[in-house]
Amino acid sequence: MPQVSIATIKRFKATTQEMVKDLLAVEEPLHIRLQFGHADSWHEESLTVTMRTPGNDFELTKGFLLAENVINDSQDILFIRYCQKVKEEEQGNVVIVKLAPHIYFDRNFLERHFFINSSCGICGKSAIEAVTCNDDALTVKHSQKISINLVHQLNYILEKKQTVFRHTGGLHASALFNLQGECLFLREDVGRHNAFDKVVGAALSSDMIPMNEALILLSGRVSFELVQKSVKAGIPIIVAVGAPSSLAVELADAKGITLIGFLRGNRCNIYTYPERILDK
Amino acid sequence: MPQVSIATIKRFKATTQEMVKDLLAVEEPLHIRLQFGHADSWHEESLTVTMRTPGNDFELTKGFLLAENVINDSQDILFIRYCQKVKEEEQGNVVIVKLAPHIYFDRNFLERHFFINSSCGICGKSAIEAVTCNDDALTVKHSQKISINLVHQLNYILEKKQTVFRHTGGLHASALFNLQGECLFLREDVGRHNAFDKVVGAALSSDMIPMNEALILLSGRVSFELVQKSVKAGIPIIVAVGAPSSLAVELADAKGITLIGFLRGNRCNIYTYPERILDK
Repeated sequence: MPQVSIATIKRFKATTQEMVKDLLAVEEPLHIRLQFGHADSWHEESLTVTMRTPGNDFELTKGFLLAENVINDSQDILFIRYCQKVKEEEQGNVVIVKLAPHIYFDRNFLERHFFINSSCGICGKSAIEAVTCNDDALTVKHSQKISINLVHQLNYILEKKQTVFRHTGGLHASALFNLQGECLFLREDVGRHNAFDKVVGAALSSDMIPMNEALILLSGRVSFELVQKSVKAGIPIIVAVGAPSSLAVELADAKGITLIGFLRGNRCNIYTYPERILDK
Repeated sequence: MPQVSIATIKRFKATTQEMVKDLLAVEEPLHIRLQFGHADSWHEESLTVTMRTPGNDFELTKGFLLAENVINDSQDILFIRYCQKVKEEEQGNVVIVKLAPHIYFDRNFLERHFFINSSCGICGKSAIEAVTCNDDALTVKHSQKISINLVHQLNYILEKKQTVFRHTGGLHASALFNLQGECLFLREDVGRHNAFDKVVGAALSSDMIPMNEALILLSGRVSFELVQKSVKAGIPIIVAVGAPSSLAVELADAKGITLIGFLRGNRCNIYTYPERILDK
């Protein structure tokens, strides 16, 4: 399935106009279905539908399942494949995941708004506590250090590599780098959560989770949920082109994550744990 | 509840660094609860939790309920208020909506991924058909026309008015304009869907829905879901600073909406129904 499509558009520059061909980032629904159980008792259930840019769908699925606490590593999945029993126009839009028998699957895990029915209450503090409770084992280490020069180079590397974005201007990107500044995985998607899930899913496929020796670069802003995904993947450093929210900074602070925003040219803001960033 | 919070950050410019105070856009959970029924039979249920920037919460709630097909106008709501029976730190984060007795509330309406269990299948075409089916009554009219000069001025107006964004760089904005270019409502939020819901909720509170004589300006990119919200609110023209996705363009095309993207200075791209935009 293509990642870009062609449209004929009317382009205005001041009052001059022309009809031109332009490229759009493709957005299509992806339906994820889960098979779970053991021995002779297997069930299949709809998990979610997400609007995504086609490509790397299995990685997207794996990253999503990790972020939602359904799986912890790639051994938790027996197989993952496209459903064949669908109409022609749905081919490639329905993914089936079979969980290993040792995985206890509880639909309550899937409640994205986990605190609705919890005793935590509805506030930022309780949202942070809920993440802390779930992910004690993945609390990030404080030992890694990188230089500010490396941080400043990340954006140039991303710009060179972002192929679909370059053509459409319509995608978010996430990229995983090792602490020597090598880009390990880069993924693009119309949804920034999807781009994040895809890149983590790629790391999961290579058995590289938790990624305590890596950083993630985000093309956009940083919300609470994206920091939550970093915690789950064990990534200790987040670098973003955009601004973080208050709760993103609070969660990063609570979980020992270095959060950097507004990466522009050779400028950036460090919101939490600046001791990981060496000034040369 | 404040919309900005203060953080002490480390700011790098090249290799020089300083500790400075900076402002962050606040992100906090909002829990929406619904009361529905009639006579002596009333029920209360959790509807959703969304991460939002505090402020205009009742508008956000109304816009969300409209977009999700729970209500059609402000008469469908008996009252809307903050829940008082919560802990101190949750005050202002839980909203209760009582629906009018004539509203039949079906939880299936709330399934955001409406096509999971539908006969529509999982593809862009079926997603568009699902919107078309639900909103026949709001199909937008083709009569309104505006000048390209007005389009080019919109961004300057937005920049002047975006107060929280100016301080934090961390918010999305949506603004409703009449076809004479007057800004009717402007709302900001960490989530672009929330900003959209807030501005539509403001219009709903003034009994201005459907808004067939208005346009909406969006600070970011345009997804399928945002066009879907425009359809539901009857808004015939969408102007965005960012890029649209393929499915956003397809839905706008199917529903008679003029979709404009990449509004930068005096440039823009018109993706659908350019006949509404006069070249002077």
